[in-house]
Amino acid sequence: MKIGNTDQHEDVNSKLQYYNKEDQVLLAVDCIIFGFDEKELKVLLVKRDFEPEKDKWSLIGGFLKKSENLDQAAIRVLNILTGLKDIYMEQLHSYSEIDRDPGQRTISVAYFALIDLSSKNFDRIKIDSAKWYKINKVPQLIFDHNEMIDKAIQRLRRRALIKPIGFELLPEKFTMRQLQSLYESILDKKLDKRNFINKVNLLDILDKLDEKDMTSSRKGSFLYRFNEEKYNSKSEEGFNFKI
Amino acid sequence: MKIGNTDQHEDVNSKLQYYNKEDQVLLAVDCIIFGFDEKELKVLLVKRDFEPEKDKWSLIGGFLKKSENLDQAAIRVLNILTGLKDIYMEQLHSYSEIDRDPGQRTISVAYFALIDLSSKNFDRIKIDSAKWYKINKVPQLIFDHNEMIDKAIQRLRRRALIKPIGFELLPEKFTMRQLQSLYESILDKKLDKRNFINKVNLLDILDKLDEKDMTSSRKGSFLYRFNEEKYNSKSEEGFNFKI
Repeated sequence: MKIGNTDQHEDVNSKLQYYNKEDQVLLAVDCIIFGFDEKELKVLLVKRDFEPEKDKWSLIGGFLKKSENLDQAAIRVLNILTGLKDIYMEQLHSYSEIDRDPGQRTISVAYFALIDLSSKNFDRIKIDSAKWYKINKVPQLIFDHNEMIDKAIQRLRRRALIKPIGFELLPEKFTMRQLQSLYESILDKKLDKRNFINKVNLLDILDKLDEKDMTSSRKGSFLYRFNEEKYNSKSEEGFNFKI
Repeated sequence: MKIGNTDQHEDVNSKLQYYNKEDQVLLAVDCIIFGFDEKELKVLLVKRDFEPEKDKWSLIGGFLKKSENLDQAAIRVLNILTGLKDIYMEQLHSYSEIDRDPGQRTISVAYFALIDLSSKNFDRIKIDSAKWYKINKVPQLIFDHNEMIDKAIQRLRRRALIKPIGFELLPEKFTMRQLQSLYESILDKKLDKRNFINKVNLLDILDKLDEKDMTSSRKGSFLYRFNEEKYNSKSEEGFNFKI
């Protein structure tokens, strides 16, 4: 046996030894799925179907497999449990309190997804227990799931103040009233209509269409669409205090 | 044996079985340590002292132990390797590409820390190889560490535009020139002095002191201090597009 090979062999062993003495843990993903139904912002909850905390309200979640990265795990969990795919998702934060999951030491990476509930995709949710809750009416959830939702709402709220928001949550064509409802839901307060319209117009991210939505009033309400180019450029530059 | 006990025993077994069939992984924390020396924003790098990628430039990092949460692991790693403690740290993002660490499947949670390099704490860095790099002169790093630094800089940059920044990075008393240098470092561009001063004054977060820093010019430069109350209140409300 060549010395070179022996060295290499020892090297691999000592390398493995280094990693192997470290603690291994389970990694979960939990998905905060926000849906907007043109009036209210809601979050999807399910009844957990295994112990511990069986039958309690919970976010949708699952464990990371070695064969996938976290984004892929979040997409898989969302798809298997709800049938939804091609959904906007974003990593939020990792939760790691030692006793957060009484089953076993599990670190959870929270993701949030944004869904337009008026689109057809939304029919396909597969879990019987699944229920949409208004974001200000969320019940007591298992583990630290309430904390996760709170953090996701805070991020949406902050984002709504510095970037355009709504592309993923509104139908392609929407009324000014629907856009205002979305902002009111996220910010959790009533907004003055005229003031809101003025501010939105200043942003210059909407195209006003020649069509009207006739369901809301006899006169009807003009429909708008995001101007994707302006929306994306405002997303990058933001509209905030600038030096 | 009572039936009750048997049931409970089966229940515990089936619970363990559920968790036990899932994949376990290593969890690391990597720390992006930003330091401001009153002129430039820098990041602390070290030469990795074990395989794989031994002797390559790297962020400071370590593995999560089962006995601690992620914040505690980040604080421990920072303290053991640098001697620093009581430092501002914030979780940034989790990195999970399957082959990101050739040693073993490891998911890394990146943290960033903010340090005022003019303070005394900074003398205590324990690692011989440790070196401060200007944030626009970072060398090629191991794994996805360059990506981590880029994301941390982006977050600092975004934050500088919507919130007060500098409380952790500047000495207690500082000149307007130092504050401008901090913003210039973070935003990576030169700023017009008069314009900068006007904008900062509009923010109304500084107290102007009666003291001067006499090292920078013969006339000297007035020293400022953050008004903590105003700073915190602006941090919460932000200074951005508001509805």
